[in-house]
Amino acid sequence: MQLGMIGLGRMGSNMVRRLITGGHHCVAFDVFPDAVAAVVKEGATGTASLPEFVKTLDQPRVVWLMVPAAVVDKTLQELVPLLEAGDIVIDGGNSYYIDDIRRAGELKAEGLHYVDVGTSGGVWGLERGYCMMIGGESPVVSHLDPIFRTLAPPIDSVPSTPGREALGGTAEHGYLHCGPSGAGHFVKMVHNGIEYGIMAAYAEGMAILNHANIGKRHHEVDAETTPLRNPEHYQYDINVRDVAEVWRRGSVISSWLLDLTASALLKDPALAKFSGRVSDSGEGRWTVKAAIDEAVPAPVLTTALFERFYSRGESDFADKLLSALRYEFGGHVEKPAGS
Amino acid sequence: MQLGMIGLGRMGSNMVRRLITGGHHCVAFDVFPDAVAAVVKEGATGTASLPEFVKTLDQPRVVWLMVPAAVVDKTLQELVPLLEAGDIVIDGGNSYYIDDIRRAGELKAEGLHYVDVGTSGGVWGLERGYCMMIGGESPVVSHLDPIFRTLAPPIDSVPSTPGREALGGTAEHGYLHCGPSGAGHFVKMVHNGIEYGIMAAYAEGMAILNHANIGKRHHEVDAETTPLRNPEHYQYDINVRDVAEVWRRGSVISSWLLDLTASALLKDPALAKFSGRVSDSGEGRWTVKAAIDEAVPAPVLTTALFERFYSRGESDFADKLLSALRYEFGGHVEKPAGS
Amino acid sequence: MQLGMIGLGRMGSNMVRRLITGGHHCVAFDVFPDAVAAVVKEGATGTASLPEFVKTLDQPRVVWLMVPAAVVDKTLQELVPLLEAGDIVIDGGNSYYIDDIRRAGELKAEGLHYVDVGTSGGVWGLERGYCMMIGGESPVVSHLDPIFRTLAPPIDSVPSTPGREALGGTAEHGYLHCGPSGAGHFVKMVHNGIEYGIMAAYAEGMAILNHANIGKRHHEVDAETTPLRNPEHYQYDINVRDVAEVWRRGSVISSWLLDLTASALLKDPALAKFSGRVSDSGEGRWTVKAAIDEAVPAPVLTTALFERFYSRGESDFADKLLSALRYEFGGHVEKPAGS
Amino acid sequence: MQLGMIGLGRMGSNMVRRLITGGHHCVAFDVFPDAVAAVVKEGATGTASLPEFVKTLDQPRVVWLMVPAAVVDKTLQELVPLLEAGDIVIDGGNSYYIDDIRRAGELKAEGLHYVDVGTSGGVWGLERGYCMMIGGESPVVSHLDPIFRTLAPPIDSVPSTPGREALGGTAEHGYLHCGPSGAGHFVKMVHNGIEYGIMAAYAEGMAILNHANIGKRHHEVDAETTPLRNPEHYQYDINVRDVAEVWRRGSVISSWLLDLTASALLKDPALAKFSGRVSDSGEGRWTVKAAIDEAVPAPVLTTALFERFYSRGESDFADKLLSALRYEFGGHVEKPAGS
Repeated sequence: MQLGMIGLGRMGSNMVRRLITGGHHCVAFDVFPDAVAAVVKEGATGTASLPEFVKTLDQPRVVWLMVPAAVVDKTLQELVPLLEAGDIVIDGGNSYYIDDIRRAGELKAEGLHYVDVGTSGGVWGLERGYCMMIGGESPVVSHLDPIFRTLAPPIDSVPSTPGREALGGTAEHGYLHCGPSGAGHFVKMVHNGIEYGIMAAYAEGMAILNHANIGKRHHEVDAETTPLRNPEHYQYDINVRDVAEVWRRGSVISSWLLDLTASALLKDPALAKFSGRVSDSGEGRWTVKAAIDEAVPAPVLTTALFERFYSRGESDFADKLLSALRYEFGGHVEKPAGS
Repeated sequence: MQLGMIGLGRMGSNMVRRLITGGHHCVAFDVFPDAVAAVVKEGATGTASLPEFVKTLDQPRVVWLMVPAAVVDKTLQELVPLLEAGDIVIDGGNSYYIDDIRRAGELKAEGLHYVDVGTSGGVWGLERGYCMMIGGESPVVSHLDPIFRTLAPPIDSVPSTPGREALGGTAEHGYLHCGPSGAGHFVKMVHNGIEYGIMAAYAEGMAILNHANIGKRHHEVDAETTPLRNPEHYQYDINVRDVAEVWRRGSVISSWLLDLTASALLKDPALAKFSGRVSDSGEGRWTVKAAIDEAVPAPVLTTALFERFYSRGESDFADKLLSALRYEFGGHVEKPAGS
Repeated sequence: MQLGMIGLGRMGSNMVRRLITGGHHCVAFDVFPDAVAAVVKEGATGTASLPEFVKTLDQPRVVWLMVPAAVVDKTLQELVPLLEAGDIVIDGGNSYYIDDIRRAGELKAEGLHYVDVGTSGGVWGLERGYCMMIGGESPVVSHLDPIFRTLAPPIDSVPSTPGREALGGTAEHGYLHCGPSGAGHFVKMVHNGIEYGIMAAYAEGMAILNHANIGKRHHEVDAETTPLRNPEHYQYDINVRDVAEVWRRGSVISSWLLDLTASALLKDPALAKFSGRVSDSGEGRWTVKAAIDEAVPAPVLTTALFERFYSRGESDFADKLLSALRYEFGGHVEKPAGS
Repeated sequence: MQLGMIGLGRMGSNMVRRLITGGHHCVAFDVFPDAVAAVVKEGATGTASLPEFVKTLDQPRVVWLMVPAAVVDKTLQELVPLLEAGDIVIDGGNSYYIDDIRRAGELKAEGLHYVDVGTSGGVWGLERGYCMMIGGESPVVSHLDPIFRTLAPPIDSVPSTPGREALGGTAEHGYLHCGPSGAGHFVKMVHNGIEYGIMAAYAEGMAILNHANIGKRHHEVDAETTPLRNPEHYQYDINVRDVAEVWRRGSVISSWLLDLTASALLKDPALAKFSGRVSDSGEGRWTVKAAIDEAVPAPVLTTALFERFYSRGESDFADKLLSALRYEFGGHVEKPAGS
């Protein structure tokens, strides 16, 4: 079927490619003409302005937004006046689900339909297919089924869960209508919260392996420092690159993130080209806020988020206060780095 | 090659089966004669006592212990006097790596070799193959290579990490010599620590999805309770069974533990047959202790461990003290369950 | 000076008493006539309705609301139309500071002034005085200075911070103008977040002392359970009642919350009349949300909040999923309580 | 009574001063003759060698060790052969209680008595008195009662816990016999674990206040960064110096550590002379290990420990791995500091 794509960054352009390969017709727009030209070469219909984009689409129009969450509302402000009753707008980016609820109401007042789609798969989606979590009105979501089925991974790319075949539904096909407006991004939000937790679990574990030779280092003895009690227990030079690889094979913790860990450590076992300042991009924060509102304890997901804050030096004032307090009550002077 | 297996529980008997299928010869012993009889039916040579077991094995003997960590030392007390110089003892259970270091020294004094093997794969290992992390002397580990290669998953059961082929080594074959005595169980210990973290990440996330309809519940208004500020944001009845399935397909958080999550929720979406008392079996605790000794922050792995303690009601006294304090400073009376 | 108090619960009526004792004139209103009658006996002017209350006050009126956070807006809806330009409304309860910002704007449009006062001191405030954190316009806050000074503890009730005398200001007098609207409740919110953290620190520590005799208990040996490695290290029957008392005297962790801990344990060392279901009342949650918005890591305050959720059984689904996963990958069956 | 002090650092020399002021007779030894000379000026009997020190003391000798935990065993190796049956050795430093258990056994074999004393009070103890937690044999602890009573704060320096007077005992006098050998340092260990938690609670809270103006900063918009949703909610320039002071006065979180916080922020509101590298000195780590052995959840105390590890950059490898993973799955490039 026909789909209009606004936003041809990494994700949007790959989706256009996968849709075209799957036999769909894509009309494309981006504020950067070069991005449009690139997908035109692969079979998309390019447009040079939002009005042209809208005019090129058949009614009821299907418009997929793949733009940064921070500019969705701005894009909608320009787009919505150009649309007509019955048209469908899909937000496939990383919007906060609370914005979806609001936008769905606003668009409904204009006779438009709003569908929120949380999309996972990253730069690998073109090849593997995208996992999609969808929120919106049932008939509208059903209407878009051919799009979702093409974007998602083929059912046989992953072994079936035994017993699942009796159930039917689209989950096995890699996309799921999760509920009314916002439900798609809500589920995607929690997905990313879990992602933070899993990443942190591997990172902490790998760090423990990486420091397993700490008993070989010299430690001075003074009143401030606890000497390592049993240095003979920490004499291991663990090859974390090989450990990541072996865990991929038959272990309980094999996963796609572990595959990527093995790949990253293969390229650069010391990870020397990274400084370790870890960004966080919204969903992790929102997941914790949801947990709090629901009174559901989520210390692992929260701690994983805070670890990213620490990595960026955000605990600076707190740390200084701890040092100041140690000085106040015990006369303890800070030890310089490297000691 | 020939291998003697002591301990024919779930893990030990499955390993015997996999080894026999792979062309090896197994001599088996267990304190329960029925367990011995079961593997004899599948081609193992059964023995009725430890002396008979040792006598049946060719020199240098290869003895694999697959017994609870708590009885390894007791078994060694009986076994070691029966062995002869050059024999090899493998501990394939869940020993603390610190015990490995000690035992390796004790056996070396008797002219024996000790190899520690951390084994992951659980009840699925028979079918999928076991992931093995190995500690000990290099020539001894090399000598046992045929055993490890048979127990491990075949190399083509998992897609290669691109670029890995140039490296060689056994990691791609599902087993890894991690270092001297204890290194195998050290790596396995951290593996399980990570496992706790990943499991907790999924569990917390699923719980947040499961409570996404909390806005539908009635909440009373009093000075003690914070009313949910935006109940309209928590009106979702999420089908966690289907979410687990869809995440298996193309998402960043696909993993074997997610496969099992999907399987568990498929059988019983409400998990009604579980009470939620979660055991922990040593490695999670030891991982945290190692992190502390190494001064490596590991809050996610630690929190995942503590969640299990909470699940068993171990915070009882602390919770009572919090209630008592709230009563002391604010006259706050505890609210009964269900309110 | 004259002050009108709406809300004569525990906190409001005690404040009226302290103000009257301090020479101020209080006009009082509450929906429960008995509450009004009680403070009339102590010298307040009672009123039977909101209109009567407003009429009784001199202009510019000073109205202090001491009602549950959840009914502040409802109270303002009835009160505001009765007030006149220049009147001052103080919210002394536990409002979310974000509501203060909104309300201050709404009241400003009516020519009214809004002051938010976070108040700490609980049931002890009548005797000790209240610690007040204040947000609002400077001239209005200055106008109310006599009220704050009376409600606060006398300066000599706490030893001076050496060097502080040179600074002046009201902080030494137990109240502080923290900034524009919302600043008072913002600081109070963080105060309570800290309170959660401190309470949790004592509770966890006391629990560790309370279980220091765990080595005396019998533990069975099986593959699921880690035996306590050194039971001889956990043979202490610590008297936590006496420990709390001794820590009050010269230790680094002496505090008012420790005083209350000592008091609670003195009355009931086993805390047997508490079940351990710990409420949380908003500020702890909001503190974490603020930390997240600010990208400030706050794992201690967050964990302290989550401990309260755990105490109320809110991790039920997550725990069941962990048990289900352990069953899936390892065939582990849950152990019953008490084992 | 007579007491011999070995170790005349900050703590040891102050204790000698307090004992002499209290009418006791002190014999002093330190490896630094200047330290001995300093206390001789204040009335102590100085000695120039360990044999002279021992010879100077009357039998049964009372020897108090106030040396770094790491050199206690070395000191005992030299001291014990010089002592005679019935002599008493007190370790007043920060020993691991597990070492106390071992040492008590070793000294008992020589007919000597060993008493472990956990001491809190830091540099303030000379003036305020020391809080002491004591482990050892009851008759020996009773024999030392005059020493403990002098070192501890006077009973009337802290208000009584109401109802406590009926109980008797020494807790009100600032020292407590907590149990057999090791019990003193066990309780002190947990005391310090709690101290870490409380300090972290204040530090996190103060940091949240300190960043309450984050809404004033400009934030760019891109796909990697979550814009602050409501910058208007974070416009506060909070004076943390004054907040610390006001909380000392009537609030629920007043404490000695808060007094020190107010003092530190008074001297230097920006804490500019501290870099924020926070040491940890053993007890915090041991507390967590004890919690794990006891299966008592202690996430607040643990997190407070890990915060110190973070402050020293110990998460470096883990952070790099997170960045590497983000690059692998999403092509996310690290953002430089300051962006």
